[in-house]
Amino acid sequence: MSKIPVMELFGPTIQGEGMVIGRKTMFVRTAGCDYACVWCDSAFTWNGTEKHRVRMMEPEEVLDEMVALGGNRFNHVTITGGNPALIADPMARFIDLCHQRGYRVGLETQGSRMQEWFLQIDDLTISPKPPSSRMETDWAVLDRIVRRLHDDGVNLSLKVVVFGDEDVEYAKTVFARYPYVSQKFVQPGNELVTEAKDISHHLLARLAWLFQVAIDTPEFNTVRVLPQLHAMVWSNERER
Amino acid sequence: MSKIPVMELFGPTIQGEGMVIGRKTMFVRTAGCDYACVWCDSAFTWNGTEKHRVRMMEPEEVLDEMVALGGNRFNHVTITGGNPALIADPMARFIDLCHQRGYRVGLETQGSRMQEWFLQIDDLTISPKPPSSRMETDWAVLDRIVRRLHDDGVNLSLKVVVFGDEDVEYAKTVFARYPYVSQKFVQPGNELVTEAKDISHHLLARLAWLFQVAIDTPEFNTVRVLPQLHAMVWSNERER
Ligand code: SF4
Ligand code: SF4
Repeated sequence: MSKIPVMELFGPTIQGEGMVIGRKTMFVRTAGCDYACVWCDSAFTWNGTEKHRVRMMEPEEVLDEMVALGGNRFNHVTITGGNPALIADPMARFIDLCHQRGYRVGLETQGSRMQEWFLQIDDLTISPKPPSSRMETDWAVLDRIVRRLHDDGVNLSLKVVVFGDEDVEYAKTVFARYPYVSQKFVQPGNELVTEAKDISHHLLARLAWLFQVAIDTPEFNTVRVLPQLHAMVWSNERER
Repeated sequence: MSKIPVMELFGPTIQGEGMVIGRKTMFVRTAGCDYACVWCDSAFTWNGTEKHRVRMMEPEEVLDEMVALGGNRFNHVTITGGNPALIADPMARFIDLCHQRGYRVGLETQGSRMQEWFLQIDDLTISPKPPSSRMETDWAVLDRIVRRLHDDGVNLSLKVVVFGDEDVEYAKTVFARYPYVSQKFVQPGNELVTEAKDISHHLLARLAWLFQVAIDTPEFNTVRVLPQLHAMVWSNERER
């Protein structure tokens, strides 16, 4: 495959979560995922409902469209999915093109597999999925990926989306397993991903809950608790 | 003076804004400010209304009280005010004590003056005040402080609170003046600091406005737009 299966390409917008929260970025959302989290907020990338919208694009085309959309109003690009780690060479090429233009490149992926181009990423978030997702973490694979990225000096963060107490325990396990990763995040899960209306009240209540969990938990002393700002500001609006 | 004028000492809670947004911390809020911003959200630290609550404390006492409150549930301390930069030796001693215990120490100050102990701070935010505050920036002083901190390798951020278009222009000026400071933040001002009720809706509308400003502004390509999460979650509740 020499092309990238692009589900959405949009921006500039504001990264609403995680290690570069608040920073302006363009989003490239790839189609396809090896997981099927029950609460996935991007299920349209893999459940077939929007298959007709997927475009197979050359890396150069993706870059051109991004520049057409964003002009000089951005210098950061976020690759997300689905799971972008399913894509090999064309993604490496795309990242090179971005770097040639002076853009920083971020990635969000669950850590179920790795590509060599991960080592070129400027802001990399591994987001292992907790029990509420109904997915199983392959710890041996995750161990190898996190270790490799850390040893290579990649700017790496771990982020766990948390819906309830069992997920809190999972987050503790993840953070304890990789003590050498200093950037650690928890994020309240969005239970209303199909709701079109203003969900900010609900999200703030979930954030208050997770704040309190962190306050009470010594294991979260260095963990940062952050919401999804975009969902609070723009609800579940697509391509925002 | 060998003591610290402490207005409030509370936590653990979650840092709601700026460079360590989302991180658990203890707050030490000092009394006294050389500014009098019209929209100051901590005017009780300097306008005399709560003078009777100020406690003159030895650095060791501050540490002890902090540990009594937080136990093993924190390892980060945020010094704020008022303007903590008005305090010399006892603050240096307090920071030493924190470091001996293994805590990281953050500081928020407006950049009107500097203390040698700034160089010991782990997460330092300089927050110059825009025109809406009715304060005047002394650029010569600010230049010296920012340069010194940068040259000394301090983990430094610039944060500008923004109420309207004139403040946006001021923020651009600040960021352009110190291009070597890579961590830059803008934050929507809170116009309802005396409101006791839920103000999250208003704050989210202001955040949406500032998101759009950033999206449209090439000068904000590397600037991060962040709200005050604590005010969204806990309104203007004190000591949260
Ligand atoms: S890994 Fe991410 S994209 Fe894939 S199913 Fe889970 S939440 Fe959705
Ligand atoms: S510098 Fe800070 S504490 Fe002082 S008056 Fe202004 S906002 Fe208030």
